[in-house]
Amino acid sequence: MTTYQAKIYVTLRPSVLDPAGTAVESGLKHMGHGGIEGVRIGKYVELKVSAADEGAAQKQLDEVCDQLLANPVIENYRFELQAVG
Amino acid sequence: MTTYQAKIYVTLRPSVLDPAGTAVESGLKHMGHGGIEGVRIGKYVELKVSAADEGAAQKQLDEVCDQLLANPVIENYRFELQAVG
Repeated sequence: MTTYQAKIYVTLRPSVLDPAGTAVESGLKHMGHGGIEGVRIGKYVELKVSAADEGAAQKQLDEVCDQLLANPVIENYRFELQAVG
Repeated sequence: MTTYQAKIYVTLRPSVLDPAGTAVESGLKHMGHGGIEGVRIGKYVELKVSAADEGAAQKQLDEVCDQLLANPVIENYRFELQAVG
């Protein structure tokens, strides 16, 4: 078994409105940061996964993302794996 | 003025408990994903910033993160910039 450090990025699909991002953008304008636009807010998850090999770790993370971390209807995800021992 | 695409990662400081991460880890165990541990949940923000140069963009993003996107008492942040035109 190898342990992998995973970094998972969950983002809203481009076609889905992001009210939180719009609120942040509006707040930033009021604070004087007018040069900022296109704010989109997602989730960033770090975890360790133990698996036989990198393929098995990827398969498990796909399941975890589809079932729990992301809502496939409105969100995309991607992840990076790094062996740590 | 150059426009930069920024990817911002906001994470809880290692010394701060993450109840949401613990809940996800517990849920995953109940779903049969026992090989996963150390779940930490953060924020991932994408935005575009227009600035005179990369140094000015970094300075503005530091202000934005300190004032709005991150709580410096319990969270760390880091960001990547890429010129897009």
